[in-house]
Amino acid sequence: MTPHSNLHVNADRLWESLHQSAKIGPGVAGGLRRLALSDEDKAARDQFALWCQELGLTMTIDAAGNMFARLEGEKDLPPVVMGSHLDTQQAGGRFDGILGVLGGLEVLRSIKDAGLTPKRPIELVNWSNEEGARFAPSMAASSVFAGAKSLDWLYARTDDDGRTFGEELERIGYKGDAPVGGRELDAYFELHIEQGPRLDEAGLSVGVVTAPYYAIGTRVIFKGETAHSGPTDMIRRKNALVGAGYFITAIDEIGWEVAPAGKACVSRLVASPNKNGILPDQAELIFDCRHPEKAVAEDMYRKALNALEHSARRANLDYEILERWTFGDEVFDPDCIQLVRDSAKSLGLETLDLYSQAGHDAFFLAGMTPTAMIFSSCINGITHNEAEDVSYQDAVDATNVLLHTALARANR
Amino acid sequence: MTPHSNLHVNADRLWESLHQSAKIGPGVAGGLRRLALSDEDKAARDQFALWCQELGLTMTIDAAGNMFARLEGEKDLPPVVMGSHLDTQQAGGRFDGILGVLGGLEVLRSIKDAGLTPKRPIELVNWSNEEGARFAPSMAASSVFAGAKSLDWLYARTDDDGRTFGEELERIGYKGDAPVGGRELDAYFELHIEQGPRLDEAGLSVGVVTAPYYAIGTRVIFKGETAHSGPTDMIRRKNALVGAGYFITAIDEIGWEVAPAGKACVSRLVASPNKNGILPDQAELIFDCRHPEKAVAEDMYRKALNALEHSARRANLDYEILERWTFGDEVFDPDCIQLVRDSAKSLGLETLDLYSQAGHDAFFLAGMTPTAMIFSSCINGITHNEAEDVSYQDAVDATNVLLHTALARANR
Repeated sequence: MTPHSNLHVNADRLWESLHQSAKIGPGVAGGLRRLALSDEDKAARDQFALWCQELGLTMTIDAAGNMFARLEGEKDLPPVVMGSHLDTQQAGGRFDGILGVLGGLEVLRSIKDAGLTPKRPIELVNWSNEEGARFAPSMAASSVFAGAKSLDWLYARTDDDGRTFGEELERIGYKGDAPVGGRELDAYFELHIEQGPRLDEAGLSVGVVTAPYYAIGTRVIFKGETAHSGPTDMIRRKNALVGAGYFITAIDEIGWEVAPAGKACVSRLVASPNKNGILPDQAELIFDCRHPEKAVAEDMYRKALNALEHSARRANLDYEILERWTFGDEVFDPDCIQLVRDSAKSLGLETLDLYSQAGHDAFFLAGMTPTAMIFSSCINGITHNEAEDVSYQDAVDATNVLLHTALARANR
Repeated sequence: MTPHSNLHVNADRLWESLHQSAKIGPGVAGGLRRLALSDEDKAARDQFALWCQELGLTMTIDAAGNMFARLEGEKDLPPVVMGSHLDTQQAGGRFDGILGVLGGLEVLRSIKDAGLTPKRPIELVNWSNEEGARFAPSMAASSVFAGAKSLDWLYARTDDDGRTFGEELERIGYKGDAPVGGRELDAYFELHIEQGPRLDEAGLSVGVVTAPYYAIGTRVIFKGETAHSGPTDMIRRKNALVGAGYFITAIDEIGWEVAPAGKACVSRLVASPNKNGILPDQAELIFDCRHPEKAVAEDMYRKALNALEHSARRANLDYEILERWTFGDEVFDPDCIQLVRDSAKSLGLETLDLYSQAGHDAFFLAGMTPTAMIFSSCINGITHNEAEDVSYQDAVDATNVLLHTALARANR
């Protein structure tokens, strides 16, 4: 039993916050379209800031647009940090990221309601552009916070219309003055929906994330030559889409070779000039290889590079690797993981140990501070889809685990 | 010897017209970017109309935006028509289509200079949207003129920004009052660059086109399901790009099986949502199969449909055929072909008989009137590329063949 084992979040208030959030940037099929640094993202940030202000928290915004709401502790020690993100995919769900931020808000509200002051400060963060749906790659701002990338690199990220992260951050008024990172944290806990079917299949509400998946993402381009699709003989063609076709199928095979634990795909392809009757001279694509074991993911990536070379040769093309990113290299902290397990147990909740198969800001945080993640079940594992859904009880259970975990760590 | 065997076009004047045209809608690498119904297309049309007016020709514009400049004959008989197009690919050349229109203009100028009045009227036409680079498919307006497609169908063609052919035709002020087609022509002759290397390799300036290639173009879509590219197991994925990948490689194989005479490709692919980290649920693409023999092209198409079915099944997707078009079904007229041959011979020019491997407005005209085509050599066969080039002498030789062909037919 923890010292506050009778403490619970206000379930209806949590649900109401999620309901309010679901009205900001609605999609077409019941989900959300709240792309990073869009007007909708600004509206969600404004609402979040207002709620934090009403609760008497101090808000600090850093130069990457990350928002930190702080509950002071008894002592001026490095804070325990909870957080996730309020941005969504183009056709995303109402819980992905959002549960972690609004669950964290409910945790702070419950601590305040109970009249408690933790020993250490507790902060709640909304990370900018976690999804990478508008500005690739994902987890862009937390990677700068953790020192893995530079602020200049972040500002130069470009969306499909050529607008930069820097311009858009300024436009929505969330380029703050605080430095990005460079300060000591006590620990980081991220509540997130599982984005997979394991918990739902097991009939459990809460998962303990023991480690991230290792993922390698890469942006490449095939380069050929435009020509008329009629008179140009097959032997004279340099059709960039043919290289892309061979590569896509090779990546699919690489995923199947290590299924079900591993997976691989091409998620994005842009050809140019991409017109009927003209052979395209460029095809740019993004692929990723994922596996719980880093060594296997790296082996998949080596095979992908061979396939890249082979596909280019097969289609008489050149190619170039434009960008490469990895995540999942960092290992979560055993004490923090155990604290999540203990908190769930004290609430009478059975849990399942899981890998995180999606990328999360927690992966970058794990490189700078003791980190763990809490998963809530999500229905049928559906995510990055407007049909994404989470049951009331699962959301509440998982938020209670976050409450007890953060409070215990802050009072340590 | 023809009655006017000493008659020649004014070579420098022809070259100067081509030079003037090359200034309207310049590309970035010496070619042209003059997409159908753009401001640049309007400027080229205006210049063409001005030249025709200066020459005292009557200009008639039909409801598809096709422009007909007419030199009256001694008798009010059905006209001999010359023509091609002034629109270009996105990164196109200075001669593709343009040589046929401005060569035709030089033919009429030369006839006027010589004080000749042909027995039949001679018309020169600039067909709208031949390239299909902005509004697919190609040869859109000539297909309506020939009665193969309806005017409503043409007006509803949409560009990548969602603007329709009808809106844009109106916007640039070229929606004329004349009905589209429905009148008798005596014959149609189209001068065009070869868009292939045969003449250049043979060291000849002029080719006699004996028949079109048969081509089948099709727009299809693969439909899957969006999902997070991390947690979703391979077996649960419905990644539309995987279907597209298998299909692209199958189409490439179908082309190679009948090379060098036949060819096949995917020239355009648009995936959605096309974002890093999310499996795309849609991939729409355009492919074409081409062969001089219709039966072989149809066999290629049957194989392509099998590949479509197989690729969709292999990637756990649905698919739909959205649109299908064919051209090259019509056969050129033996008398018209022989007249081209004789005209070249009377000028002392050796010629080569060729198939047309690219689509041309002449293919649709062949269905309604006796038709033939004259090819001029183009350097290395490079086309649909800003590096496309034609030598001064080759352009002049081919235009002289057009002059003698059109005049002989009009005086028949």
